[in-house]
Amino acid sequence: MEEKQINLLLFSGDYDKALAALIIANGACDLGVKVTMFFSFWGLMLLRDPEKMGPEDKSLYEKMFSAMTPRGPEQLTLSKMNFSGLGKNMLLKMMDDNKAPHLGEFLNGARKNGVRFCACKLSMEIMGFASEELIENVEVIEVYDYLKDAMQADMQLFI
Amino acid sequence: MEEKQINLLLFSGDYDKALAALIIANGACDLGVKVTMFFSFWGLMLLRDPEKMGPEDKSLYEKMFSAMTPRGPEQLTLSKMNFSGLGKNMLLKMMDDNKAPHLGEFLNGARKNGVRFCACKLSMEIMGFASEELIENVEVIEVYDYLKDAMQADMQLFI
Amino acid sequence: MEEKQINLLLFSGDYDKALAALIIANGACDLGVKVTMFFSFWGLMLLRDPEKMGPEDKSLYEKMFSAMTPRGPEQLTLSKMNFSGLGKNMLLKMMDDNKAPHLGEFLNGARKNGVRFCACKLSMEIMGFASEELIENVEVIEVYDYLKDAMQADMQLFI
Repeated sequence: MEEKQINLLLFSGDYDKALAALIIANGACDLGVKVTMFFSFWGLMLLRDPEKMGPEDKSLYEKMFSAMTPRGPEQLTLSKMNFSGLGKNMLLKMMDDNKAPHLGEFLNGARKNGVRFCACKLSMEIMGFASEELIENVEVIEVYDYLKDAMQADMQLFI
Repeated sequence: MEEKQINLLLFSGDYDKALAALIIANGACDLGVKVTMFFSFWGLMLLRDPEKMGPEDKSLYEKMFSAMTPRGPEQLTLSKMNFSGLGKNMLLKMMDDNKAPHLGEFLNGARKNGVRFCACKLSMEIMGFASEELIENVEVIEVYDYLKDAMQADMQLFI
Repeated sequence: MEEKQINLLLFSGDYDKALAALIIANGACDLGVKVTMFFSFWGLMLLRDPEKMGPEDKSLYEKMFSAMTPRGPEQLTLSKMNFSGLGKNMLLKMMDDNKAPHLGEFLNGARKNGVRFCACKLSMEIMGFASEELIENVEVIEVYDYLKDAMQADMQLFI
């Protein structure tokens, strides 16, 4: 049987949407499906390594932007009912009660499962993010590479 | 001619996005296309039956969550310009002026048209929703079943 | 080689999401891919010509709605961190620093590149928008026409 392939574009930086994307990605890996994730715009926040500092030579706007945006999976907020974190904490407790892993664990799972992680080059340039601030093994690619991968996949989602 | 098939993942619990999803679903049915809708996360709110009570044994968080989230199509709010309901009422009036059906009618139409309704098992477990709280004829499925259906469809959307 | 084709449904009226959609559309054109964009709901705001007035015979609700919603690409706001325009201005400055064009330029680029622009007939009727308020060369089509185009494309996104 021909190998199936899916492509997920994560534009959103919301905890709940990133969770949905990674549950789909890991589910697909379990089925032997090849998965590419393309992180653009707010989705890039998920790839920031909270332990790593950005380059020194950021512009003022880039520094402000870095400081104001989430750094890694656990800092993301909900797309709805976040209530300054209250709603998110409630969701996390409910996930714990059901022994469902948190976002960071799904992210690590996806990496171990061999999901191809790609970051949007243009988004990184505009927001002033450098590869050295991101988690490891992320390919920085252009929209052309995204399109080539996505168009020949069996399924594409914009999340 | 081979039968076409589409798969719509409704993640959002916004009135306007659910409306878009159901207009596409009903339009596809009119064209003889087979439609699967997979409701996950906030999208589950659309499937709650306002007449049915949840099970007694919900946890405190699950009870709070049930109480704070919309119950059925007409309680959903707009993704933009909701203004505590004012914007939504304005939209509903404009829909009435154009004799466009409301969300609940589109939902019933989709069910009569034979759209396959599926709810995400993991989302239901985390949020503490039971099948008995939902409208009838909803299949509760896992992400694997979603993927198998979606990957062989002619079109997939994440809404 | 067979010509590839993609279909982008722009439901959102957010500056950042519209930017993502148009970057994908223009990238696809560069690769020789045929692109259809279908603007529905809030996405219609992008097609409004700021220079053109709407018809005189709008209902009160339609007039209010016209006045309260963005008129053309540059009036759109961010989906996140808009902060009454502060966040958007910051993003625009960062785009300028990187010599990245603004949304309006991407829109004009897409039109010059031959992207097919379609507006959702039902959305226009409900919101009370007339073709004469929109930029030129926009086809007003029904959901059936959208579906026919999208189902035979190599990739479909809901943005």
